[in-house]
Amino acid sequence: MKDIAYYDGQIGPIDAVKAPITDRGLYFGDGVYEAAMVRDQRIFALDDHLDRFFSSLSLLRIEPPMARDALAAVLCDLVARLDTTAPHILYWQSTRGAAHRQHAFPAHAKTTLMAFAEPCPLDRRDRPYKLLTVADTRFLHCNIKTLNLIPNCMAMQQAVEAGCDEVVFHRDGRVTEGAHSSLALLRDGVFCTPPADELVLPSITRKHLLALCEQLGVPTRVAPFTVDELRTADEILLLATGTHCIAACSLDGQPIGGKDPALLDRLQTAYQAMFDQLTTR
Amino acid sequence: MKDIAYYDGQIGPIDAVKAPITDRGLYFGDGVYEAAMVRDQRIFALDDHLDRFFSSLSLLRIEPPMARDALAAVLCDLVARLDTTAPHILYWQSTRGAAHRQHAFPAHAKTTLMAFAEPCPLDRRDRPYKLLTVADTRFLHCNIKTLNLIPNCMAMQQAVEAGCDEVVFHRDGRVTEGAHSSLALLRDGVFCTPPADELVLPSITRKHLLALCEQLGVPTRVAPFTVDELRTADEILLLATGTHCIAACSLDGQPIGGKDPALLDRLQTAYQAMFDQLTTR
Repeated sequence: MKDIAYYDGQIGPIDAVKAPITDRGLYFGDGVYEAAMVRDQRIFALDDHLDRFFSSLSLLRIEPPMARDALAAVLCDLVARLDTTAPHILYWQSTRGAAHRQHAFPAHAKTTLMAFAEPCPLDRRDRPYKLLTVADTRFLHCNIKTLNLIPNCMAMQQAVEAGCDEVVFHRDGRVTEGAHSSLALLRDGVFCTPPADELVLPSITRKHLLALCEQLGVPTRVAPFTVDELRTADEILLLATGTHCIAACSLDGQPIGGKDPALLDRLQTAYQAMFDQLTTR
Repeated sequence: MKDIAYYDGQIGPIDAVKAPITDRGLYFGDGVYEAAMVRDQRIFALDDHLDRFFSSLSLLRIEPPMARDALAAVLCDLVARLDTTAPHILYWQSTRGAAHRQHAFPAHAKTTLMAFAEPCPLDRRDRPYKLLTVADTRFLHCNIKTLNLIPNCMAMQQAVEAGCDEVVFHRDGRVTEGAHSSLALLRDGVFCTPPADELVLPSITRKHLLALCEQLGVPTRVAPFTVDELRTADEILLLATGTHCIAACSLDGQPIGGKDPALLDRLQTAYQAMFDQLTTR
């Protein structure tokens, strides 16, 4: 199969699997999700993603669709059905259930589970990102990986139309994150990234980079930064599950970064090595 | 049929109709909706709802699922299949299409249309609402009737658990709206309602009430008000399609309103008369 999907026990190609129109995801976006990289049928950092998934569920008071081990088994079973060792992205989400529409939690609905895996090219280190600044008008729950993503979709479309690859969301003078990436910068040899508060998703790639910096003896700084600080940084990094850590080369059409390629390469190489080690049998 | 649903041409009971898991509503909440009252198989204020629906679509740059007349015909056909004259709520939504997941707009996806109608008791004038204040942490696009409704669901659940019927969202000291109602108050004979800016949905019931006030010679004031002003108002009104205009009797457990029952009754009676006139054959 070139791709595969799951919905509450139903398994088939992505384009064939159906959900009831009463799934609260469809009309409220009332759910949370995760996405993890798969290579050689192994899921990268599954524990980290399950940790965050259960945390997101808990923050929205959604019962887990099943126990953690059972969920991991469903995801691993799905991935085992892929007849390829090529890189895939594995996506899964849970919503508060299928029930007739009412805002408050439905009394007897069972949490849904939807998942799919499809090919995802990896390693884009040779093509740095062009970035576009966009005002961050999102809600104040961006620490939860929810399905309420209209502002992210609108901003990414703006970026695409401007010939860009990602967005730099900023709010009250502070850089928060991208539309689907976390942001970091290198300045004077220090790896700088914003704090993971309610305005920012606690990125797993960021967590791994912070750990790698510690291993490599690269100093880190976790503190808010402004668009101007990003503009004048030595290097700018976009951190995401599907793309790892990609440098940025322009912001709103002006060149940025490119001033510390040695440290950038060191971090990218270390991340790639960790990824390779954990996804190779 | 006790209820009926539609999804891109498929028609059946609400619990039987399915959507592809690739519907962008399901994983991004990337769509908009409307809900209108139906009685005797007539849709109340359909033109107003279609106006707002097309406006919401345009604000999110979603192509209409079909021309306005064709959409009205689909909705009227659906309602005509109900074998009852009892009050129903008619809900419909459009999402940006069914496509594999990517944030930017999909190139060849067609806007979806989902709709359903189910029984909805009307006229709850005899049971005023208990209200609960909740901080408004929503995004800055509340003027669009979108499917990104997690904060509304979470707030309504809080209200239910506190024994309340609706929420009073407030932001920076200002009352915005309820979780699924618009808010207004009566003070010294004046009908007061917040301005319809990006923090508030342009409520159709509010629009009708403003027009009725003009007909009845009741002065109106469209300006922001605070939670304290709501607390000390003569009467507080919750305006919504499914419930018309219901008074409130308490806020966070403290009694409110009840100081101008004559004007309240005049407005409620006028609204009911307009509704009856427009939904009776």
